[in-house]
Amino acid sequence: MRFGYVLNVVGVLTIAVGLTMLFPLGFSLYYGDHGTYPLLASMAVTLGAGALLFLFFRRESAQVMNHREGMAIVALGWFAAGVFGGLPFLFGGTFDLVTDAVFESISGFTTTGASVLTDIEAVPRGLLMWRSLTHWLGGMGIIVLSLAILPFLGVGGMQLYKAEVPGPTPDKLKPRIKDTAAVLWKVYLLLTVLQIILLLFGGMDLFDSICHTFGTMATGGFSTKNTSVAHYHSAYIDWVIIVFMFLAGCNFALHYQALKGRLNVFWKDAEFKFYLIVTVAFTAMATASVMGVNYKGFWDSLRYSAFQVVSIGTTTGFATADYELWPALPQVLLLLLMFLGGSAGSTGGGMKCMRILLLMKSAYNELYLLIHPRAIKQIKLGGKSVPREVMSGIWAFFMIYLGLFILSSILLAAMGVDLVTSFAAVAACIGNIGPGIGTVGPAENYAHLPLLAKWVLSLCMLLGRLEIYTVIVLFVPEFWRK
Amino acid sequence: MRFGYVLNVVGVLTIAVGLTMLFPLGFSLYYGDHGTYPLLASMAVTLGAGALLFLFFRRESAQVMNHREGMAIVALGWFAAGVFGGLPFLFGGTFDLVTDAVFESISGFTTTGASVLTDIEAVPRGLLMWRSLTHWLGGMGIIVLSLAILPFLGVGGMQLYKAEVPGPTPDKLKPRIKDTAAVLWKVYLLLTVLQIILLLFGGMDLFDSICHTFGTMATGGFSTKNTSVAHYHSAYIDWVIIVFMFLAGCNFALHYQALKGRLNVFWKDAEFKFYLIVTVAFTAMATASVMGVNYKGFWDSLRYSAFQVVSIGTTTGFATADYELWPALPQVLLLLLMFLGGSAGSTGGGMKCMRILLLMKSAYNELYLLIHPRAIKQIKLGGKSVPREVMSGIWAFFMIYLGLFILSSILLAAMGVDLVTSFAAVAACIGNIGPGIGTVGPAENYAHLPLLAKWVLSLCMLLGRLEIYTVIVLFVPEFWRK
Repeated sequence: MRFGYVLNVVGVLTIAVGLTMLFPLGFSLYYGDHGTYPLLASMAVTLGAGALLFLFFRRESAQVMNHREGMAIVALGWFAAGVFGGLPFLFGGTFDLVTDAVFESISGFTTTGASVLTDIEAVPRGLLMWRSLTHWLGGMGIIVLSLAILPFLGVGGMQLYKAEVPGPTPDKLKPRIKDTAAVLWKVYLLLTVLQIILLLFGGMDLFDSICHTFGTMATGGFSTKNTSVAHYHSAYIDWVIIVFMFLAGCNFALHYQALKGRLNVFWKDAEFKFYLIVTVAFTAMATASVMGVNYKGFWDSLRYSAFQVVSIGTTTGFATADYELWPALPQVLLLLLMFLGGSAGSTGGGMKCMRILLLMKSAYNELYLLIHPRAIKQIKLGGKSVPREVMSGIWAFFMIYLGLFILSSILLAAMGVDLVTSFAAVAACIGNIGPGIGTVGPAENYAHLPLLAKWVLSLCMLLGRLEIYTVIVLFVPEFWRK
Repeated sequence: MRFGYVLNVVGVLTIAVGLTMLFPLGFSLYYGDHGTYPLLASMAVTLGAGALLFLFFRRESAQVMNHREGMAIVALGWFAAGVFGGLPFLFGGTFDLVTDAVFESISGFTTTGASVLTDIEAVPRGLLMWRSLTHWLGGMGIIVLSLAILPFLGVGGMQLYKAEVPGPTPDKLKPRIKDTAAVLWKVYLLLTVLQIILLLFGGMDLFDSICHTFGTMATGGFSTKNTSVAHYHSAYIDWVIIVFMFLAGCNFALHYQALKGRLNVFWKDAEFKFYLIVTVAFTAMATASVMGVNYKGFWDSLRYSAFQVVSIGTTTGFATADYELWPALPQVLLLLLMFLGGSAGSTGGGMKCMRILLLMKSAYNELYLLIHPRAIKQIKLGGKSVPREVMSGIWAFFMIYLGLFILSSILLAAMGVDLVTSFAAVAACIGNIGPGIGTVGPAENYAHLPLLAKWVLSLCMLLGRLEIYTVIVLFVPEFWRK
């Protein structure tokens, strides 16, 4: 482990975060709001800190990054972005406490969308744009992480995606990251522009269109309105966001292939089929439950059900309805979706469809072996057999995810948070969803939780976003040895 | 699969169930209560049905039982006991509905202790004795199932216990079952007699002592009092039951070894140490939470915490306090204990300590491998390495357990049961605990649930008790082919 090298790269990332503050600064200047000074000050601090790290720690140019360095850079880089990203809210007086500012920023960069803001519409537009931009940047990061970095670090089954996106030298991490990133970000940018245009057609102004698109494409969920997307009362806007949330929850390698003309990749992909079937089936069940109870007609029931199912299923967290007022069945379904999450290689969080699909297949195999003790059966995904070590990586991921969920719920309960909220807040933060159930439901927020609980949940968001392993190894002493 | 053979053995088991009704009949005659006629009628029907099965289906004497036949006998035998065991409640007018009678009886034979009785003390003593006896018989069954049958069927990691108890011919199931059963039942009987005597010393009458001992040793939880063990207001009785619940949650193979003079087996056993540490740690946390909040002094806090932690942890389900009035932390801990359960080879339910311990070890191994990609690390339990196929069996068990939990919760929610009760009732029934959280808490019961929900939960109790696989394979068409 070359600490100097790691901190040098973290410095570069911090400088990049500082530079992106120019974008919301432009809006602040245009609107002449109170975001200008906080953004300028934050930029100065962030760029300064990044430059110090960059200049103070030398980079030995010849060597390539190794496994451990890759993980340390990812975890520390995200953490740095989270901390520096909170400065504008602190300098702007949006929050009095560092805890709240950092919570909101980490929630942004991890594309979670859990908020401690009680009155969103009172915040200057420049700062709201920054808040939404943290989502979009986090989304950019996560696509590259999941399709270009994690497959080579061997984290929780992501090895399966080694060959999904072209890269010239599969053995060397850095050139591949650059190449893959360039390709995927083009797709991400294209979908972003498309959604902004479609939202403009729906009568949303440019500012809100950009912010909601950032929240959608990153499956983040920060809105510029206190009542989230429900504010617009527009079926057109609801359906545009439903479609783009669904797209953001797909593997971006598939989008890339589809844009190159191979449209049938979707139907060939086992994970996509599973993701589609779950989304359709859960929407159907939710529609049947709320029709005649919460909504009169079929189309309204479908619209609100689809929005909430896709929003929670892709771990976005936008809301057009308070599902805590719905019958028990859709509530149970939404709670389950919090754990399932989006596809691997998407901006969605949760455990990922691919992993759950493979776990289900492997459980079925064991049942089969019980009846045919001498049979030899391989687990297959889309025709290819899945190596044993990948399966044990996925089993372990599932177990560690649950373990973390349990441990964090115990911590929250010990701080006096009630039973349902403890479980739901942790599930919504590890899964990078945002709204939960109980006192952190879609009509409430995280502001009332104890300070310490907010730090636990911030850590949960980071752990969930970085596929747990990447963060957890930092706490293993052996990881830091030479 | 020889159907005739299977049904013949199920007939023998049914006859055995019928004969055991003599025991409560004795009490009914002694007390001269209204249980005499219902028990006599039930005995006649049960013995008749058993005899019909036995005589109608021929047993080919020469062959030994194979895997599939073993599983079919276990599942159908338990189901038959559950159905015929409900007759006394139906004939005695305790319940008007078959659903309720069968639910109560299955809850008894699966040692769950979930009740649909609203006024326990109004039921004739003979029928209450039968209710408690179903626990004790179920406990006898489960010890032999888990230590003599499942290890040879290769179900969910139970292979590890192949050599725990002596048996002459490890390859042939039947002689081994007889031998092992004889040895284990002696231990079970000894502990039963000991507890009855100790409860008598505490001032409980003989009838109640026997019933509560049956509920304890089987980790069942049916009481003869409406307020469960809280009725006695006795610290002595509480502690006696705490100790015996804890013993009933231990692997009975360890008790057998200890009785042969090898007392150190407990300290050498990795699962026992894990079980002890969890019990002590959770009791300590619960005591700290309730002290000064629900109870004034340390000793009262310890007594009520220990009782509830051991009762839920061993999946017994006796209550001396309504833990729904406790702070959030102990509630979360109790909910987690519902999934953990007792030791393998005990009468306790849940996932079993051994499995969770191995899953935790295997998750740790994966973390280790991520840092040392070239290391080779074996999972060990008590010094012995655990074969890979055992580990995948345990992973799959865990996954199927969770899958069943999720599916059943969805079904309950679809019937209009609220979110918390849906999850908690299913957890408490699959785990064979009894009381849950929500509207099925320790101060309530299952009587108010929809009819169909009671059937789903009855199936859950059977699935949980028989380690899921044994029941689930019955629904696989291939299982029944020649």
